[in-house]
Formats: sequence, C-alpha cells, structure tokens
Amino acid sequence: MPIVTLTTDFGLADHYVGVMKGVILGLAPRVSLVDITHDVPPFSVSEGAFQISEAWRHFPKKTVHVVVVDPGVGSERRPILVEADGQLFVGPDNGVLSLIYGGAKAAAKVKVRHITNQKLFGPRMSTTFHGRDVFAPVAAHLAKGMKPSLVGKLIDDYLRPQSDKPVRTGHRVWQGQVLRVDRFGNLVTNFLFSEFPAVEMRPFIMIPGISRVEKLIHHYGEAGVGEVAVIVGSSGFLEVSANQASAAKILGVGVGAPVELSIY
Amino acid sequence: MPIVTLTTDFGLADHYVGVMKGVILGLAPRVSLVDITHDVPPFSVSEGAFQISEAWRHFPKKTVHVVVVDPGVGSERRPILVEADGQLFVGPDNGVLSLIYGGAKAAAKVKVRHITNQKLFGPRMSTTFHGRDVFAPVAAHLAKGMKPSLVGKLIDDYLRPQSDKPVRTGHRVWQGQVLRVDRFGNLVTNFLFSEFPAVEMRPFIMIPGISRVEKLIHHYGEAGVGEVAVIVGSSGFLEVSANQASAAKILGVGVGAPVELSIY
Amino acid sequence: MPIVTLTTDFGLADHYVGVMKGVILGLAPRVSLVDITHDVPPFSVSEGAFQISEAWRHFPKKTVHVVVVDPGVGSERRPILVEADGQLFVGPDNGVLSLIYGGAKAAAKVKVRHITNQKLFGPRMSTTFHGRDVFAPVAAHLAKGMKPSLVGKLIDDYLRPQSDKPVRTGHRVWQGQVLRVDRFGNLVTNFLFSEFPAVEMRPFIMIPGISRVEKLIHHYGEAGVGEVAVIVGSSGFLEVSANQASAAKILGVGVGAPVELSIY
Repeated sequence: MPIVTLTTDFGLADHYVGVMKGVILGLAPRVSLVDITHDVPPFSVSEGAFQISEAWRHFPKKTVHVVVVDPGVGSERRPILVEADGQLFVGPDNGVLSLIYGGAKAAAKVKVRHITNQKLFGPRMSTTFHGRDVFAPVAAHLAKGMKPSLVGKLIDDYLRPQSDKPVRTGHRVWQGQVLRVDRFGNLVTNFLFSEFPAVEMRPFIMIPGISRVEKLIHHYGEAGVGEVAVIVGSSGFLEVSANQASAAKILGVGVGAPVELSIY
Repeated sequence: MPIVTLTTDFGLADHYVGVMKGVILGLAPRVSLVDITHDVPPFSVSEGAFQISEAWRHFPKKTVHVVVVDPGVGSERRPILVEADGQLFVGPDNGVLSLIYGGAKAAAKVKVRHITNQKLFGPRMSTTFHGRDVFAPVAAHLAKGMKPSLVGKLIDDYLRPQSDKPVRTGHRVWQGQVLRVDRFGNLVTNFLFSEFPAVEMRPFIMIPGISRVEKLIHHYGEAGVGEVAVIVGSSGFLEVSANQASAAKILGVGVGAPVELSIY
Repeated sequence: MPIVTLTTDFGLADHYVGVMKGVILGLAPRVSLVDITHDVPPFSVSEGAFQISEAWRHFPKKTVHVVVVDPGVGSERRPILVEADGQLFVGPDNGVLSLIYGGAKAAAKVKVRHITNQKLFGPRMSTTFHGRDVFAPVAAHLAKGMKPSLVGKLIDDYLRPQSDKPVRTGHRVWQGQVLRVDRFGNLVTNFLFSEFPAVEMRPFIMIPGISRVEKLIHHYGEAGVGEVAVIVGSSGFLEVSANQASAAKILGVGVGAPVELSIY
C-alpha cells in the first residue's frame, strides 16, 4: 500500500483535487491518498514549500509527494522529481520543493530530475492543469514502483532555496521572521530551538512585530489563559503562542513579520 | 479496490460526510473513497451538477459516484441510479445528475433506474438524511459488485437537463454565460473551444459582463501579471483568466453573468 | 481493512492532519482513514464531543476513533482510551469523549484506560502536538489489533459528562437548548423525539430564542420555502429547520440558545 500525498493551492470547493485522485487511482488502485493541505493561498509558492517541508519527514520511505503550487503552469518552468531520504517528490521547479533539498538528512545524496518522459503523462495535455496531466500520473507510476530514472535525466541547475535563517545583527541579537501563522494563531518563527538553546537557560527578549515576549513555557498551560509566551513548537521552531487564544490577534502580527531575538 | 466518490453540499464542519463514509466502509471495507467536493453551496443543484459533470470522466470504469444535493429529501422526488460509459451514479432525480446523460460518450446507452429496493437501505430510515440512509448503502452494494438491475426498474421520465449551450444572437455573435468561478477567479464559460475553434485563427471579442477581452493565450504566463485574457481551460471550455490574479475580481463578474462572443 | 477516524480542531490549512495520517499509515499501512471533521472551533471541547458522539454509531465494530481537541496538551491532563460497544476511542481526558460513555448501548460495560505505555509513542515527544506523538501512534497500534490492555491501566475517575438533557420547568414545560447549528442553518436541539413523542400527537409550542414554532413537519418540503418548522432530525433530536433556508438566520438564534417546549 504505497502512499501518495497531495499539497496544492486548489482549495476544496472545485473538483480539481478529486480529479487528480481519480487519475492516480485509475493508474495505481492500491495507493493510499493523503491530503497535506489544499488551502495554500493561490500562487503562494513559499507557503506550499513550507507546508510540505514540515510534513514529509513523518511519512514512511517510498512515499510519493505531489506538490502543485504552479502559477507558471504551461510555461517553460520544468516539472521535476526529487529523491530525498528515500522519499519522492514531484512538482514544478519554481521553489516549491526547495526546502526539501536542505532539510534532507542525507542532503548530499538528494537527486533532482527533469520530468520529460511524455509516455507517463495523461491522454489529454492541457496547458493549465499539469496537476492532472503530468504530476498525478507520474506520481501514480512511481507509487507503483517505476524507477525514478525513467522520468528523465538528472539536473543540477534546479532552483535552490533562499536561506531563511535568522541573521545576526548585533552582539547577542538576531533578526528573524514569522514563517507561518497556524489556525490557533501560533506564530511559527524561523528560530530553531536547536540553534538557540540558550533561551532555556538565559534571559531573553523576543520581539515579534513591536511586542516584547520574555517568558519561555514548556506547555501552553504554563501561561495564563490569553497570556503570550515563547514555546518550542512541534517542528522544533520557537513559536510565540497564547494559551487558548491567538497570539497573532493579540499581537497584531502576521506571516513575514520581523522577529528580533536578544539573549543576555 | 473499487472507488466511491462523494459530491455534496454538506460542507466539512459537520459529521455528515464522515457518517456516510462510515456507512460505506461498514458494508464495503475495501473501497477507496474520494471526495469531489462538499462545498457545493447549500441546495445548489446546478452547481452540484456542474462539479460531478467535470470530474467523472477522469475516473476508471466501475467507479460509483454518490451525488447528494437534495433540497427535496424526504419528499416524492425519486432516488435514481444512472449507468453511463461504464460508471455508476446515485443521487436524487432533481437534475443534479442531468449533465451526465448528455456528457456520456455513449449517450444513447445511458440507463436510469428508480431506486426502490428497500432491502438495500440503512437500518434506520430518516426523512432528512438519505445520503446516509439510501445513497451511501446503495453505493456500497454497487461498489461490491451488485448488479444495477437489483436497485429497481428502468425509468424514462427522469429530469432532463436544460440546454446550457450558447445561443446565436447575430451574424457572428453568440450569447453564453459564466458556468463557474473557480478558486483562482477563472471564469469558466459555456463556450466549448471544440465548437468555437475560430477564436484561435480570427479576431474575436469576448464580453463577460461589460468588459471586452480580445486576446487568446495558450498559458497564463503569456499574459502580463494581472492581465485578463481568454484561455482554453482544462475541461475544454473557454475561460477568462488573469495571470496570477482573479479575473472575477478584476472584471466584477460572477456565476451566471452573460458572456457575449463575436468572431470576425 | 480496519478504520481509523479523525476528529480535531486543527483545520485543513495546516499540515497537522496530514502529519497524523503519515504517522498512522507508517505504522499501519492497511488502515482506511476517515475524517469526521477538523473544523471544530479551536479549543471547543464541547463541540468536538458533540461531533464524535453523533458520528461513531455509524461505523463498524473495531473502528478506532482519534479525537483531539486538546487545549491542555502537555499539561497533567491524561491521554485515555475508551472501549464502548466494540469500538475504540483515544483522546485527552478533558470531556471530549464524555458523550460516548452515556451514549453506548452497553454503557455499563464501557472501559476507560489511562494511556501510559510510552513504548507506543512517537520517536520525538513534543509538548504541543500529542495528536502526532501520542494519539496517532496509539491508534495505529490498536487498529493493527493490539490489545487495549497494553496501553495502560483501567481508571474510574475520568471526566464524566454534565447532563445536557432538557429540564422540566412547569406542568408541561421544559427548558432545553440548541446543541448545534449545522451548515444548512438547522437548529439541533437537545430534545430527543423518543423522549417527547407527544409533539406528534398534541399541539405544542417550541420557542428557540424568542420565536414561536408550532408546526411539526415530516420532511422539509411540507413547509413552504423559507417557512420555519420542527422536524425529527437524522440523529433523533428535534430540529428547528426552514425549507431551503437557514432557520438560524431567520430566527437569529445560535448554539447554546435556550429552547422552551410546551406541550398541550
């Protein structure tokens, strides 16, 4: 029972996601389909990249991930296949898979191929829906055990990720940002706890937007209801959270907002 | 691994869809379930009809499609089973399946049956949730291979679709409409490219609402960012789209809006 | 093909639900996954409790239900396993499973265990995402046939439900409330038809909020379009509904609103 996951900006109100699943199951009937999310904002390559980068490590080897946030569909941008840590990813070469390269344990062994084998594509080729005509059928063939080398040649000039690590701006001061606001209003920052373990031992000030947060908690209930504090999130990033409330609303801060961290 | 798809106006915030899946898997544990959409606006038979009509051709033979947009549930309206091109459809006879009849390749061979075999229904019969009590169990039995003839007799007086083709209104002028606005703001018109291939060779003016569009593009990137143009959509209809933006918002046009096409 | 259902307040815009499914399928590849809903409002234990209590009876024996509405995640609140009528439920002991105890046919035989066997947990233990680290892996092991007794010891001091039955306030007068407003605007009250069968035989007045409703209908179409009436809903509760319209909007009434019933 191989797994195929789907991450798109297609939403759930249209038939697009259902159609991709029909194509996949028509070719590979025994696949288990898992939605990561289809609520990536339309055309938001960076948010699609974030969602799949957070999710894929929790899937078993041989999982095939289909990632379609593809504003350039039909143009020259290449469809690619990424192999990383025993899992497979198909999507456009527009950056949406770029966080996989660096995130893989065996980053040096990551392989990227240009998908060119048209025999694998759907019977009718549109210029607007490669999720259906390219990525779904290629994923189905891979899930059934087709060798990755059959999709096309290895390439080396794929789009690399821009670094989104915090930048040191003073003696003990770093400038980072909010990567994501989740449904609960947690502000996921780009500060990895593993790179800033001192927040647990020394006084610190974190400033998302213009508000100071100086308290580290280990579970939400350590803060009062509605109190804002810093917590190590489930992905290892420092998050600014409020107990049973939305830190994003309380602080008026959103995706991309600057976050300054000073450790004393 | 037979496939059962679900298309409803139930939304995802209530337990209704989950309950239908429980009923289906209780009877047919090996089925693969696929959601087409559950975000059909409440009671919108026409939009439910559109969604399933766009989706079904991408599924393999023997797929069973459950379509429940059913404002008349519990009244005299009949539950029906449609057989078309080797696929099966269950839903109310209120028009929600009516676009299947004409859309089938072998339209002359479409069969419609009145579902009357109460042995197939759920143990408790409500008057408000036939998705659970009628359509889910009947679909499960069909997915397991039950003969269609066991649901009930063939009928001939089922609800036919109203034509929604463009109407000729002048020498080289046709009046059509917007069938659907998708998540990206694309205006899906009822002009099939296969019936109006001249737009690729001759000057034309398409007027969705009150705005003129005169450019045909082959992929979104041929237009400038935010520029509105006509494109052949993934279903074969002409769509009015904007590159990385919402044509619906830019033009102020929604579902049902008139679309005039003049070809010179 | 065992079934695992998921009910959470995680929404579908984040990767959280997808990640839980990856964990489950990694341990139990042959499971069928069913979403009940992920749109429980953040932190709303009572609504999570309502959704799973309405859904579970429609699933076959041995189904494992994962219910994660867990504002106290990481604190002292216990993770529990409930066995009821041959089905299994995992979630926090905060009341979200409390409607199962009383709703089971064999209520006296319901067993509740404190999940303490850390060997069953995920490889990395967060304090903020026990859906991923505790409940998903425990559910996967149970779906594969692990004995419930292996999760931990039976307990007797789990959180019991508060009664939410209507209260008698006069000779033939009861005070109840609106349990739920569904997508169609139906007001699901806590009056069970089986406990108030007289509404079918005698005149009655139901007052949700401040509006009187005196008509009982057997299917929506018995009322005029937009007319408000009482109907026996698919779960057996009396519902206040409008034909092809939202009773909630027409009456200006929401969840928790008082509902008075007088029978003459």
